[in-house]
Amino acid sequence: MNKRARPGEYELIKDTPRPGHADYPARMKYGGYNDYRGGGRFSGRITVAFVMAGAIAKKLLDLIGIKVLAFTLKIGSLRVDTLPTVEQIQAYTYKSSVRCPDLNCTKSMEEAIKKARKLGESLGGLVECHALNVPVGVGEPLFDSLDADIAKLLFDIPAVKGVEFGVGFKASELTGSQNNDAYAIKNGKIVTLTNNAGGILGGLSTGMPIVVRVAFKPTSSIPREQKTVNLEKMREEAIQVKGRHDPCVVPKAVPVVESGVAIVLADHMLRGGYIPRVLLRR
Amino acid sequence: MNKRARPGEYELIKDTPRPGHADYPARMKYGGYNDYRGGGRFSGRITVAFVMAGAIAKKLLDLIGIKVLAFTLKIGSLRVDTLPTVEQIQAYTYKSSVRCPDLNCTKSMEEAIKKARKLGESLGGLVECHALNVPVGVGEPLFDSLDADIAKLLFDIPAVKGVEFGVGFKASELTGSQNNDAYAIKNGKIVTLTNNAGGILGGLSTGMPIVVRVAFKPTSSIPREQKTVNLEKMREEAIQVKGRHDPCVVPKAVPVVESGVAIVLADHMLRGGYIPRVLLRR
Amino acid sequence: MNKRARPGEYELIKDTPRPGHADYPARMKYGGYNDYRGGGRFSGRITVAFVMAGAIAKKLLDLIGIKVLAFTLKIGSLRVDTLPTVEQIQAYTYKSSVRCPDLNCTKSMEEAIKKARKLGESLGGLVECHALNVPVGVGEPLFDSLDADIAKLLFDIPAVKGVEFGVGFKASELTGSQNNDAYAIKNGKIVTLTNNAGGILGGLSTGMPIVVRVAFKPTSSIPREQKTVNLEKMREEAIQVKGRHDPCVVPKAVPVVESGVAIVLADHMLRGGYIPRVLLRR
Amino acid sequence: MNKRARPGEYELIKDTPRPGHADYPARMKYGGYNDYRGGGRFSGRITVAFVMAGAIAKKLLDLIGIKVLAFTLKIGSLRVDTLPTVEQIQAYTYKSSVRCPDLNCTKSMEEAIKKARKLGESLGGLVECHALNVPVGVGEPLFDSLDADIAKLLFDIPAVKGVEFGVGFKASELTGSQNNDAYAIKNGKIVTLTNNAGGILGGLSTGMPIVVRVAFKPTSSIPREQKTVNLEKMREEAIQVKGRHDPCVVPKAVPVVESGVAIVLADHMLRGGYIPRVLLRR
Repeated sequence: MNKRARPGEYELIKDTPRPGHADYPARMKYGGYNDYRGGGRFSGRITVAFVMAGAIAKKLLDLIGIKVLAFTLKIGSLRVDTLPTVEQIQAYTYKSSVRCPDLNCTKSMEEAIKKARKLGESLGGLVECHALNVPVGVGEPLFDSLDADIAKLLFDIPAVKGVEFGVGFKASELTGSQNNDAYAIKNGKIVTLTNNAGGILGGLSTGMPIVVRVAFKPTSSIPREQKTVNLEKMREEAIQVKGRHDPCVVPKAVPVVESGVAIVLADHMLRGGYIPRVLLRR
Repeated sequence: MNKRARPGEYELIKDTPRPGHADYPARMKYGGYNDYRGGGRFSGRITVAFVMAGAIAKKLLDLIGIKVLAFTLKIGSLRVDTLPTVEQIQAYTYKSSVRCPDLNCTKSMEEAIKKARKLGESLGGLVECHALNVPVGVGEPLFDSLDADIAKLLFDIPAVKGVEFGVGFKASELTGSQNNDAYAIKNGKIVTLTNNAGGILGGLSTGMPIVVRVAFKPTSSIPREQKTVNLEKMREEAIQVKGRHDPCVVPKAVPVVESGVAIVLADHMLRGGYIPRVLLRR
Repeated sequence: MNKRARPGEYELIKDTPRPGHADYPARMKYGGYNDYRGGGRFSGRITVAFVMAGAIAKKLLDLIGIKVLAFTLKIGSLRVDTLPTVEQIQAYTYKSSVRCPDLNCTKSMEEAIKKARKLGESLGGLVECHALNVPVGVGEPLFDSLDADIAKLLFDIPAVKGVEFGVGFKASELTGSQNNDAYAIKNGKIVTLTNNAGGILGGLSTGMPIVVRVAFKPTSSIPREQKTVNLEKMREEAIQVKGRHDPCVVPKAVPVVESGVAIVLADHMLRGGYIPRVLLRR
Repeated sequence: MNKRARPGEYELIKDTPRPGHADYPARMKYGGYNDYRGGGRFSGRITVAFVMAGAIAKKLLDLIGIKVLAFTLKIGSLRVDTLPTVEQIQAYTYKSSVRCPDLNCTKSMEEAIKKARKLGESLGGLVECHALNVPVGVGEPLFDSLDADIAKLLFDIPAVKGVEFGVGFKASELTGSQNNDAYAIKNGKIVTLTNNAGGILGGLSTGMPIVVRVAFKPTSSIPREQKTVNLEKMREEAIQVKGRHDPCVVPKAVPVVESGVAIVLADHMLRGGYIPRVLLRR
């Protein structure tokens, strides 16, 4: 049975914006000339372009050994107990239906999503992304700082409501001596003993893994009846959103986040002369 | 007594990067040609430019009734109990030495900062910013979405480690029915009954207040001895950062955040034709 | 009989770049992954996008009374005797097969093109464009000056080899007193008695008509045998370009130039607040 | 005797815009808040920034063997008889007071400028610029084409009224077989037998020297009385521009044009990966 919303179903919601979607601001912006079907240009479907560009970006980064790895850290209130190792992320993320390298956690997350669907509900979650082997000093001071450029692209992804690097929001509760990452020498290389900074200081990469976390809100489309307003008749109405909708977009967002980070990094590596043309011509 | 770090003191740290600062990546990026004194172009001092541009941006926004108001929400673990009203933010923020409109909370924050200073420590915190009277539909789809543009400029501010809109990271734990903001009509105007979205859906303003929260890490410069590496001699050393340093940058960051949000909004209002030339010529 | 080049015909030229086309640099740039058929992304066909965007730009400019009018000034060595008036440009340009408002001249141009075709040759020419009713002061100082922005977009059009404003290159031979446009008052409005500047001073519009002239080279595709190099065999060869080709692109370039100028103007008018949102919403 | 215009002298022209200068549009744009002294931000003095950035750009281009060489081709009606060779440009341009590598021509140009000064007049001219050893394929298709980017920066230079590449405007009078540059092999390298294209096809470099010509109008400031309008009193008046003014800016424009071309090339070389980071770190 095809449960995709049919054009007729979208027709019903033309004048009654769905809560949580861009329907209302888009209609006000474009005076009714926007494509309201499925969210139009505000649909999550457009993130396919991120993944296409990300595939090329990852090939460029591969030339100089940089890896970008994203995974589901949390769905609803279920969070992986232990942070996975790089090897675990590489081995298990795409084996998990929810893109979570912790396969026990995967089970609970699958069930939570199923339960949410049954209840006519939806769930959000967190995606974490690591970029490995980024050289020291990537990023431009102030206005093209590496974290700012990454954050911009990540906030361009629909449903993202927060972005943080390293310990992120928690850094605001630490003291300076707790938060500062001490330098040390390990195998002749300068490292930091902790990575609270998430691999970025002053907008520049430190050589440690870049760690960024992205908060996704729960899917806006839920089958439950919701309060809205009929824009034509200017009266309050109820709406029931039809169609086949994911109760949780987080698993699908993992490659999108990964692509977003890869695109920004590839751009900075090209601009900074880190990828010489001789490699590009291979 | 002048406690500003003297050039000679910075000289000592030329080869031994201060933890938490951009010293190390900047030196690697610029091969020693960077200005290491006081952080050079990575210093918080450069945010004066944000405030200068912000002053102009706010004048532009004033022409069409938009207000941008930031305040200290939290310092270390001290958070205002009750969110202040717009009137309270306007009346009390700049009466508070820590830019917190809750004057009781201000006292505790002042003490926490004093205590941190005594301990040779530093504190971080949260700044919250509200933009009022932004019309519906401001922002461009996908790559110049309003939240992405705001986030980029906020992450350009030194010491920022996280940015979130509306309920932000907490949205990841809510269900769809909890998180979606229902539409209603109030005094003939379309509003949402809650503002979990922080005034932005699909990268467009909803007409509700834009609410953004910014996480600042604790000041990197602390008088305590810290582990670092001598880059010339390639050996581990200890460093004690000299000079007069704020144990908490959050109060100073309030006008910077406010300016950042105002700059992005003014830019979008100009581009979108919201500020007609006839107003600009007044 | 369909004389469009067939895929097989383009196949023949894959390794033997056509003189005057981007074939050779494109192949060197993309390592053979470029689409060589018909010039691919370097084809004049892509200028259809200019015309599409130009149609929207002209609608925006219409809201505030700005008109943009381009026409064929010269084909090969045939130039209109007398500069046409605005009324003539509007009335006759699109009545002329070669987009020249001088209908006598049109005849000679048509014949020159026919003759060129018979000889296996091609012709270039000049397109002139006037923008009327542009307010005084449009353009941003130095790096977004109005002439620079217009020139950039015009040089993006394939086959353009020169751009000049007002008297243009001839200004280099005039003296200051000959070239400077004296100010006067006419019907209560400030005007210049001449318009040698082509309506732009210091990168800003002067309120006089903006006048820009664009030089197009003769069509690169000619049926005559030409010398080239076989890139695979690294030996000199002869090539005969097949397919149906215009012996003169100038008439087709007229709407493209017009669109290019309109796009830049619309952009500047929006950024400068000249088109208020209230007009955009109509 | 100091002949620089004194502030008082500029005061006199505050309300009476000098013909040929940006005074009038600038005042209309900024509502009188512009700096009218000496042209303010519209002054030729600001091109010092081009030369500063150009110095860095040339150092970058040096790393990969690219040379950029500009010279005075023409002043008023005096044009060099024979195009100078690269060696002549390098040897003589900066030996000539007018930056013309033809030292006989230099004499006549010097006299022409002296004569213009005596007559209270000014002269314009042409600057030609060659970029050598640019690899094949530099430039991005359509919207960042190499010629468009160069033209934009050149039109940003005050007093520029025209830009052309290769044979430029003359191309519009040639036939296809005359204008197309035939390919050949010379010393195992692919070259074109002529360089009518000025080293750029389809917005990409061809490997041949990039040749661009820039038309400068005569200096706008001339001591002769000129007609203008008093903007405050809205009546026609005469103005006599005081101060020490060059009767010809062309010699000073030579390093500015050279810098403009170098800046664009350095930018494209960095973006294209032609300057690997290992060279940048030397």
